[in-house]
Amino acid sequence: MAKVNLAFLNDLVQAITRGERRDRVRGDGRGTLTAQNLLMRPAQERLAAACDVLMGRIGEAARIAVAEQALAAYAELDAGGRRDFFALLRDRFGADPDPIRKAYAAYDADPSAGHLAQLFEAVEPRRQTLLRRLNMAPGATLKLVGMRADLLDAIREDPALAPIDGDFAHLLSSWFNRGFLRLERVDWSTPAAILEKIIAYESVHKMSGWEDLRRRLDAADRRCYAFFHPATGDEPLIFVEVALTRAIPDAIAPILNAPRPDAAADADTAVFYSINNSLRGLKGVSFGNLLIKQVVAVLQAELPELRTFVTLSPAPGFAGWLARQDGAAAEKLLNALEQGDWQGDPAAADRLRPDVEAMAAQYFTRARARSGAPADPVARFHLGNGAAAWRVNWPADLAPGAVKNAHGLMINYLYDPAAIETQHEAFVRDGTVATGAPLAEVLNRNPEPLK
Amino acid sequence: MAKVNLAFLNDLVQAITRGERRDRVRGDGRGTLTAQNLLMRPAQERLAAACDVLMGRIGEAARIAVAEQALAAYAELDAGGRRDFFALLRDRFGADPDPIRKAYAAYDADPSAGHLAQLFEAVEPRRQTLLRRLNMAPGATLKLVGMRADLLDAIREDPALAPIDGDFAHLLSSWFNRGFLRLERVDWSTPAAILEKIIAYESVHKMSGWEDLRRRLDAADRRCYAFFHPATGDEPLIFVEVALTRAIPDAIAPILNAPRPDAAADADTAVFYSINNSLRGLKGVSFGNLLIKQVVAVLQAELPELRTFVTLSPAPGFAGWLARQDGAAAEKLLNALEQGDWQGDPAAADRLRPDVEAMAAQYFTRARARSGAPADPVARFHLGNGAAAWRVNWPADLAPGAVKNAHGLMINYLYDPAAIETQHEAFVRDGTVATGAPLAEVLNRNPEPLK
Amino acid sequence: MAKVNLAFLNDLVQAITRGERRDRVRGDGRGTLTAQNLLMRPAQERLAAACDVLMGRIGEAARIAVAEQALAAYAELDAGGRRDFFALLRDRFGADPDPIRKAYAAYDADPSAGHLAQLFEAVEPRRQTLLRRLNMAPGATLKLVGMRADLLDAIREDPALAPIDGDFAHLLSSWFNRGFLRLERVDWSTPAAILEKIIAYESVHKMSGWEDLRRRLDAADRRCYAFFHPATGDEPLIFVEVALTRAIPDAIAPILNAPRPDAAADADTAVFYSINNSLRGLKGVSFGNLLIKQVVAVLQAELPELRTFVTLSPAPGFAGWLARQDGAAAEKLLNALEQGDWQGDPAAADRLRPDVEAMAAQYFTRARARSGAPADPVARFHLGNGAAAWRVNWPADLAPGAVKNAHGLMINYLYDPAAIETQHEAFVRDGTVATGAPLAEVLNRNPEPLK
Amino acid sequence: MAKVNLAFLNDLVQAITRGERRDRVRGDGRGTLTAQNLLMRPAQERLAAACDVLMGRIGEAARIAVAEQALAAYAELDAGGRRDFFALLRDRFGADPDPIRKAYAAYDADPSAGHLAQLFEAVEPRRQTLLRRLNMAPGATLKLVGMRADLLDAIREDPALAPIDGDFAHLLSSWFNRGFLRLERVDWSTPAAILEKIIAYESVHKMSGWEDLRRRLDAADRRCYAFFHPATGDEPLIFVEVALTRAIPDAIAPILNAPRPDAAADADTAVFYSINNSLRGLKGVSFGNLLIKQVVAVLQAELPELRTFVTLSPAPGFAGWLARQDGAAAEKLLNALEQGDWQGDPAAADRLRPDVEAMAAQYFTRARARSGAPADPVARFHLGNGAAAWRVNWPADLAPGAVKNAHGLMINYLYDPAAIETQHEAFVRDGTVATGAPLAEVLNRNPEPLK
Repeated sequence: MAKVNLAFLNDLVQAITRGERRDRVRGDGRGTLTAQNLLMRPAQERLAAACDVLMGRIGEAARIAVAEQALAAYAELDAGGRRDFFALLRDRFGADPDPIRKAYAAYDADPSAGHLAQLFEAVEPRRQTLLRRLNMAPGATLKLVGMRADLLDAIREDPALAPIDGDFAHLLSSWFNRGFLRLERVDWSTPAAILEKIIAYESVHKMSGWEDLRRRLDAADRRCYAFFHPATGDEPLIFVEVALTRAIPDAIAPILNAPRPDAAADADTAVFYSINNSLRGLKGVSFGNLLIKQVVAVLQAELPELRTFVTLSPAPGFAGWLARQDGAAAEKLLNALEQGDWQGDPAAADRLRPDVEAMAAQYFTRARARSGAPADPVARFHLGNGAAAWRVNWPADLAPGAVKNAHGLMINYLYDPAAIETQHEAFVRDGTVATGAPLAEVLNRNPEPLK
Repeated sequence: MAKVNLAFLNDLVQAITRGERRDRVRGDGRGTLTAQNLLMRPAQERLAAACDVLMGRIGEAARIAVAEQALAAYAELDAGGRRDFFALLRDRFGADPDPIRKAYAAYDADPSAGHLAQLFEAVEPRRQTLLRRLNMAPGATLKLVGMRADLLDAIREDPALAPIDGDFAHLLSSWFNRGFLRLERVDWSTPAAILEKIIAYESVHKMSGWEDLRRRLDAADRRCYAFFHPATGDEPLIFVEVALTRAIPDAIAPILNAPRPDAAADADTAVFYSINNSLRGLKGVSFGNLLIKQVVAVLQAELPELRTFVTLSPAPGFAGWLARQDGAAAEKLLNALEQGDWQGDPAAADRLRPDVEAMAAQYFTRARARSGAPADPVARFHLGNGAAAWRVNWPADLAPGAVKNAHGLMINYLYDPAAIETQHEAFVRDGTVATGAPLAEVLNRNPEPLK
Repeated sequence: MAKVNLAFLNDLVQAITRGERRDRVRGDGRGTLTAQNLLMRPAQERLAAACDVLMGRIGEAARIAVAEQALAAYAELDAGGRRDFFALLRDRFGADPDPIRKAYAAYDADPSAGHLAQLFEAVEPRRQTLLRRLNMAPGATLKLVGMRADLLDAIREDPALAPIDGDFAHLLSSWFNRGFLRLERVDWSTPAAILEKIIAYESVHKMSGWEDLRRRLDAADRRCYAFFHPATGDEPLIFVEVALTRAIPDAIAPILNAPRPDAAADADTAVFYSINNSLRGLKGVSFGNLLIKQVVAVLQAELPELRTFVTLSPAPGFAGWLARQDGAAAEKLLNALEQGDWQGDPAAADRLRPDVEAMAAQYFTRARARSGAPADPVARFHLGNGAAAWRVNWPADLAPGAVKNAHGLMINYLYDPAAIETQHEAFVRDGTVATGAPLAEVLNRNPEPLK
Repeated sequence: MAKVNLAFLNDLVQAITRGERRDRVRGDGRGTLTAQNLLMRPAQERLAAACDVLMGRIGEAARIAVAEQALAAYAELDAGGRRDFFALLRDRFGADPDPIRKAYAAYDADPSAGHLAQLFEAVEPRRQTLLRRLNMAPGATLKLVGMRADLLDAIREDPALAPIDGDFAHLLSSWFNRGFLRLERVDWSTPAAILEKIIAYESVHKMSGWEDLRRRLDAADRRCYAFFHPATGDEPLIFVEVALTRAIPDAIAPILNAPRPDAAADADTAVFYSINNSLRGLKGVSFGNLLIKQVVAVLQAELPELRTFVTLSPAPGFAGWLARQDGAAAEKLLNALEQGDWQGDPAAADRLRPDVEAMAAQYFTRARARSGAPADPVARFHLGNGAAAWRVNWPADLAPGAVKNAHGLMINYLYDPAAIETQHEAFVRDGTVATGAPLAEVLNRNPEPLK
């Protein structure tokens, strides 16, 4: 490796000390660069130099080496260094105003397709080209996804970096085009290198280790599917865990703790009980919708006896929403949930249940975020996919996080292949929330919002 | 399939007859559409309708079905229908001027990164989104590459379609990012479905059939490598045929006709004697540079005894260029080449050779296209890659095409890994043509251009 | 390689010149062997020496090298040399009589399981151990199958070599245990290295080249399946070609010459129209029975609309049998078949058909070989598998061989999964030939044998 | 599955109640069998019936089903039932004495190759055919290996079952011919289904779980290789764990507990520190010799900088042997080892070491089993492979088992590719133990055995 680096830096130095970039280098007061002293420059400097070289007129094979070098230098940066780099991307690799003005003037005079094309070209930030060239290095795509995750963090610290996120999102959407994804079953014959990622990325219902993993993958009543992308290899981009059951489940513990069956159960229901996006850097490039629908198709083909496709989903916003409700009823319920012994006393739970269900029904069907979409993020996802809110279940998950965020509430969303498209459209058009019979019954029993 | 189509068209009709697109549909005077009568509409109408649906708010799984349908309808079009469709892409799927004007005004007042990002978004033609959605269908990528090839044809007929080529080029460059390519050896254990494409796409030195193919692939002294892309599966995007020899060859026939050796030759030279781009639709998304350099690396690792990496390349522009030269010497040479019996009479060839070599040396080092680049297109490619023009060989190829285009002339370009980058840069910077010792000697013997 | 050989021969010489084998070597009058002069010994001598070494006490890794050497030397032998080698196997690598006598005496006195085991061990010819050790070399299994084919040839020349065939058959049966076979579909995505073997091994209906192959493999109405064995890699041991049709075919030409359909036909019938054993050396280790039944199962699973599984088979013994029949009717028919213009004149064929069918029905149901089995070898195979003789077809194959051997006659054998086992057993128990309705009708029309 | 069973048993019943086997069935007093009541018979009866059917004249496809059934019934047996089955194999599936006597008489009169072949055939126990037919069922080979392991247990209980072990050994040797084995690297990209077997089968230095496994497989300084057989799929038959180090290690803990290095060490030594046979049923069908030599070859090719190939091996018989030695010196040493605080006190260990080494040297070079082979079983294996006893290390392993069996002693065996064959032969010929320089030095210091 050392030899390769030297060779590359040699090239780099030649490139930098020659031609138009020399001035700037000199301007930095470094005097003449040699491979040796460049090797010892800080990562940030090496990264900036490599980016300049990448945008210059070097050959394509050399570009791969320089891109590799740039990504290696990036990997050495700390959070501050990364913010500086993103600022550099924003400030040095934008677009030149003059060509934009010229192109716009032409377009403004005659908004033809040709002028639009020229304007589009003038307007595209140079960093898109830079990112495409960085992507030529082996393994670069995953690293750029990671860089995007870093960027999202950096924007939280410094909102002025936000404009360049569009460029990342634009390119990642193109590279991760749904047509390039490969749906694969993950099971016990899957390489350990992938399985350990499933353990690591499972965040909805954490796994305790390999035995737990095996229970979820390697049993006649379980399935796991993931999307992979050719450029990110072994990385499961998103995965869903499925339990095959006799009926729609109303609690998570029986699924997580069930012993392994000897034979395939007489299942009629597929329960999507955990869906995980693995890579934060792919935010906004969503695959979940497609994953569920493709898995439904795969399961229908393999197990024609399955009749029902349903989730068992958390309600992460319920506790917060409830706490924000005014009115005696809400207050009383909150009190009971926070202080009562419903976790240990089934009879107490039975007494509370009607009120919890009523409030939950209200939460899923009427509570809205400022954007007008459902307040619950998981509801937004499934309803947006065209699923129906089927049934609220309480208490359904006694894990500490679920108690804290949702007082133990869970919900089933039903994926009925015949209704998905219509429901999706109604939801998109006017926010209609499709409801299943059990939830509808709760709503009928409680025509007025609890106050 | 019929059932799927009906289901899709049902969705399509529902989507079209509802909401904002109803008017337009009605405006066409078609009255109420039903699945049945839409099924019988012409392909062009179905394609246009599917595109509208794709840009609307349907679910992602439905998009895949609609995209499939759109591509199937496209496949039914004839050249005229395709031109109409491209015009539709240009005219109906451009960008709205109003948002552009608003975004530009903001940018013009304050050319910040944020305003640039907004302008970029406003300016991106809607057909880019459309093409991305079409690409969601299974096998779509290859079909879109084919659509681009059709577009190039269509532009030749109707240059006013040219502006939308940029959108295709933009997306294809992104999808066919070099980081996604997979270099693979093609040999006798390769599936026949790939091999028949090699036979079909070989256009430099045509193959006569499977036996000829086998000679070129399945022998100790031959190699073939191709780039594949995960989204286009079995399609070899570009491939190179390599002969392993004892010295730099000066004619093509001995390579094409050599009997299969019993054992690996004591080769010290790898000859790239045929490089073929397979897909016209990927014009401008070039892989050749990278292919050659990666193959050099693979061969160096596998066969460390190889010392020389060289092409044996055609000179497709030589005859045309020569015919355009003024002066008695050129005229005399042209005469001799066109009428003399150098093909059948080695002594005649020997007599002519010094003049041919002198003229050829001039052609490769001094003849320029209007752009300033070398006149010979193959020379542009290899010199641009950083290769050196090593030696002119005459007569080297007596195939009718080679005699017609180049009077039988061929040339070796030398890929010296240590010199590639420097030569590439000198060529890009100021057009310097690197020359090998044999060619330099010819130039020394003929310091002045022949006239 | 030269180095390896030298090293091996060094070992070989060390092994030979030391220990108990020295005498024999000396006895040959060769004096002291050196690696150098052994290298120059004839292949036969090297092979014999290697066999001796293999049976001695060398290490296992060395055995692999020596086995490789032995097989290489064997490959150099001509037919005479091979016969000498087989005689050596018979004479020098049998079993010692003394231990056999001792073991038998013990068994005779007390035929216990223990004594039987000892006798079995004493009786096993040493060449079985030798062949097992030869089989340790890479690629040895296929070479030993080839050696067995050579042996079958040699036995025809010299029947006294016959006894050692049992040892080959014994070992090959064990190695090619049906449990080790892998059924695979062969199609256009199969490596060319396998496909060229299909072309070469097809002997029932010869292929004219790759285009013909493609028609038989790569079409919606065709299938091809082969058995592979892990130790013989790419070698298709046996393969069957299948046509998917609308009814039971009565002639081969429409199958061989049909154009490729655009889409899968509405097939209800799978026709096994060509079954080929590839390796003569596996004679007696038959896979055909299993192949057909596994392919039936695969096709039933993939294409549930298939109702009928049937062959279109040659009748290679019909012409010879007919010529041997006495009686005026037979003589008249033979005359008409040999001299009439039924090939060119459909009306003439129509007139002849009833007699041909009657005689053919008799041939398939009553003609017996001396062993009591059906006279027709293909009939023996399919009836033995439990198939029924369904229908005789004439004229069905006008290829020269088929006219010569069977006057153009073909027959369908029907594989009815529900009846196979019963029919197989009845055939094995008392030679009952199961007949289908069409053939039964012919027999009913002709209750008495034609004379 | 139920349907298949019924169908099979139907066949089975048909086969049994018909023909020659009817009497025996009736003789058992069971009256007429029906599928229904056979289904309810005990496993042992079903197994015996299936074996009879397998030896009868059923078709080959039916054989597969019956074999599957037989193996399923076998799996239901307990230890007693298995012993009964083995007795049945011995008593009912031997060989008929009459044909043996006849064949022997002919051989005795004329011991020709032909007569030998006939005798061999007569003598082969019928159970070999039975086992071959059982092996036709899917997955049968591994089950038969398991059956052999059961047999070895059963023989320990009832030595009269021993004679049939030869038949198992005979067939397994043939099926597991070294030529059929596939060497594969096992690493972190290996399927979990294989990796969990590596954890389970590792018995030399137990693994604590997946993290421990990962340390041993997935690091730049570690390798693991296993032999697989095509008929037993995912089952690693034998595997070796390798550490790459800078010198020959003298203790196991540093290898087992070393942290994962960031980069590949500058290793010059490959240490085979754990070799495990997985399947007891393959006893006597040894692969270890070949495994080590092939791994040496693979490592030499991949890492040419490796100079030394060595084991770090236990000495499982040392403690027992030492306890059996007479003489004051041995007694004193034993005392010190059993009671001294050498484990906790390095100075004490230093004082003891010369005596331990002297005694260990004696153990490895002079202690013999009754057969004349080295007393230590691991020594027998490595010395028999041609390795040299390189160096004794003490204390080298403080795991409880190693302290109990070997007082913490370990030894390195050196595999020098250039010396292996000579040392192997000398060891086989006259028991010569090759010793390395360090061990030789110990021996020189202690020319006389300690007493």
